[in-house]
Amino acid sequence: MYQCSKAGIKDKIETFSRFGAAGRGGITRFSLSAEAIAARKEFAKRMAAIGAEIITDDMANMYATIAGSEAGLPRIATGSHADSVRNGGNYDGILGVISAMETLETIVREKIPHRHPLTAVIWTNEEGSLYPPAMMSSGVICGKFDKAAALASKGVSPEAEGRTFGEALAASGFAGDEKNRLNPEEYCAMLELHIEQGPVLEAEKKQIGVVDGVVGMFNYRIQTRGQADHAGTTPMSFRKDALLAAASAIKWIHAEMDTLPRDIVYTTGEIKLHPNVHTVIPDEVEFSLDVRHWDPAVLAKALETIQKIPSEFDKCAVTYREAWSRKRCEFDRELVALVERSAGELGYSSMLMHSGPGHDAQYVSDMLPATMIFVPSKDGHSHCEEEFTSLDEAWAGINVALNTILAIDKK
Amino acid sequence: MYQCSKAGIKDKIETFSRFGAAGRGGITRFSLSAEAIAARKEFAKRMAAIGAEIITDDMANMYATIAGSEAGLPRIATGSHADSVRNGGNYDGILGVISAMETLETIVREKIPHRHPLTAVIWTNEEGSLYPPAMMSSGVICGKFDKAAALASKGVSPEAEGRTFGEALAASGFAGDEKNRLNPEEYCAMLELHIEQGPVLEAEKKQIGVVDGVVGMFNYRIQTRGQADHAGTTPMSFRKDALLAAASAIKWIHAEMDTLPRDIVYTTGEIKLHPNVHTVIPDEVEFSLDVRHWDPAVLAKALETIQKIPSEFDKCAVTYREAWSRKRCEFDRELVALVERSAGELGYSSMLMHSGPGHDAQYVSDMLPATMIFVPSKDGHSHCEEEFTSLDEAWAGINVALNTILAIDKK
Repeated sequence: MYQCSKAGIKDKIETFSRFGAAGRGGITRFSLSAEAIAARKEFAKRMAAIGAEIITDDMANMYATIAGSEAGLPRIATGSHADSVRNGGNYDGILGVISAMETLETIVREKIPHRHPLTAVIWTNEEGSLYPPAMMSSGVICGKFDKAAALASKGVSPEAEGRTFGEALAASGFAGDEKNRLNPEEYCAMLELHIEQGPVLEAEKKQIGVVDGVVGMFNYRIQTRGQADHAGTTPMSFRKDALLAAASAIKWIHAEMDTLPRDIVYTTGEIKLHPNVHTVIPDEVEFSLDVRHWDPAVLAKALETIQKIPSEFDKCAVTYREAWSRKRCEFDRELVALVERSAGELGYSSMLMHSGPGHDAQYVSDMLPATMIFVPSKDGHSHCEEEFTSLDEAWAGINVALNTILAIDKK
Repeated sequence: MYQCSKAGIKDKIETFSRFGAAGRGGITRFSLSAEAIAARKEFAKRMAAIGAEIITDDMANMYATIAGSEAGLPRIATGSHADSVRNGGNYDGILGVISAMETLETIVREKIPHRHPLTAVIWTNEEGSLYPPAMMSSGVICGKFDKAAALASKGVSPEAEGRTFGEALAASGFAGDEKNRLNPEEYCAMLELHIEQGPVLEAEKKQIGVVDGVVGMFNYRIQTRGQADHAGTTPMSFRKDALLAAASAIKWIHAEMDTLPRDIVYTTGEIKLHPNVHTVIPDEVEFSLDVRHWDPAVLAKALETIQKIPSEFDKCAVTYREAWSRKRCEFDRELVALVERSAGELGYSSMLMHSGPGHDAQYVSDMLPATMIFVPSKDGHSHCEEEFTSLDEAWAGINVALNTILAIDKK
């Protein structure tokens, strides 16, 4: 069994934590931002240093490839994303990119024989934090999303300066050729290492999560509509307060969803208020509702719950619409078995698990065999600045990634 | 009794509705924005045309003065503000500026004798929508607010482009000399005409509100603090969801406040969520609570209610702080009587009332005799695009303003 360099991993974690550092230990590194571009340049510099050929496709996905010993074989890809949510941490996504870099660097440095070309990948805009939806670019190249719609996606925060994703893409200098997209003819497998982003590995005291798939999920937007009026003059009995109605709707959703199986997860993470001024009664509120479960029957029950939401709370009309949904994804069984075997041969404890979050590997698995490796997240926290995976845990995961890639290479 | 020009009022309402027109019938005209500056230039142009001398003070308050017949007498001021809330209407504030312009224009055109100099005023940043607090500039010149703190007020919306009020003020070209501030030596009275912003005049079928004062009010910020985690991985029982806690707090506040006298008004109009991303459990929420009543004893009860708020909802800590408060203000009795008399002599129906909203006249009344005239608001709506006062209603109010100014002049 081969091992990566722990010092090399430490150096990469520290280096990439600087791109978008938000001053509280974490980062804000929206896709295609100046900070994300700095991270891409660092990736390119390091991959060029080991002789990798670097190309980008039309969605700015980056591919750094080292040649294999046997001509005509397809590439084995490994990687993740380099963008973050607002005030996210130093591990989500980027640790999979670090794993890919470290894997290729180790193979070159140690002159480890391999037949296939090996490709380290950065997926563009996985979080979708500035330009929704999440997993945009893997979604586009795998045919899940319409490219024109993705390019037209309007930035949702001031940082976008009113631009669309397409405008940010054109300005980034990283838009390449459509023919460079990952595809099932030139690639034979994709492996993504990622932090678990949940508390299970830590609670179960396991080093490696062998991920057999991604749970099904859907995302709804719930709207309440009232009447904007002045805070100082409108008698309480005359009011149609859309925020009060939204508060009622959130409480109702919790009461109803809590009657479903206990392992369902649902989240109201985003809210938009109009006009959002302290002296005005709000007239329009919209909030997000994200629901996830492995079992389609449970998700169907959750959907029925949403459809039962009262059409009025506090004299305000309540409406809802689906923003997006994804069926559950089952990863390639042979690759899942290779991850499990590599972990075992390295002497690491592991467990089979589903992923709660969506990942680029999920869309890629529609095109070619793909799977994932999870490493523990301290206290289960992620998408926050406290997000943490120890160097030893990261090292173990990346060793599994390296040996799995080499096992795929031998198939 | 004198009358203003109905056509002149119509022209002004239409002209000023264009500065900041937001495409849905209303305006967004934040103080010192390009739109607000266009409105100020229109005001200056029209006042220069009747020979008024125009000056600004260090808070960019504008004063356009026509001379009186008797030397050495102090000025009589009348005016209001020209800024709006986001997606506000075409009457709030600006109708009082139109009233001031129309009053001075009528006096000049009709050569109406008057002893005192008469001054039309635009108060800067009454709404405080972009740079809190509300009534900032009248507050500064009347000694209610610290000027340095006002200048340091950071823009709360993207339109501010990260600037402070002081930076916007310097860039506006409208900052003048501190010695030009309205003051009790050079001014003897201030009259502000304003829309009611409530449903009372319409419900009571009265043309004129004779305003005897402004209710007391306070504004609190309520915070809930939880833990940011990934929406897809954190079991429901592990969560500390600050938005769920805020929803619980809003419902609790309504249940408790509704036990107080029925004419209290309270509003949760603004909410800030961190990080406000659909895939992340919110960790920090802050919302505003605005409370108003004429009776200090009722306000004290409301404050006791806030102080009783549970320190925890849904495993999230709940805290609160006062943002600002204002004692009730009683306007000058003699001026109130002159407004009532003018309305009567013009044959208009009127009623005595308190103002629910705060107004610049309230701070000015700390320095010199001041009062207000209210005109009806259709359906009581204001701070919204549906805000409406008919031309006849506006004309009646402005006729009362004109004759009240002339009555003050004769005192």
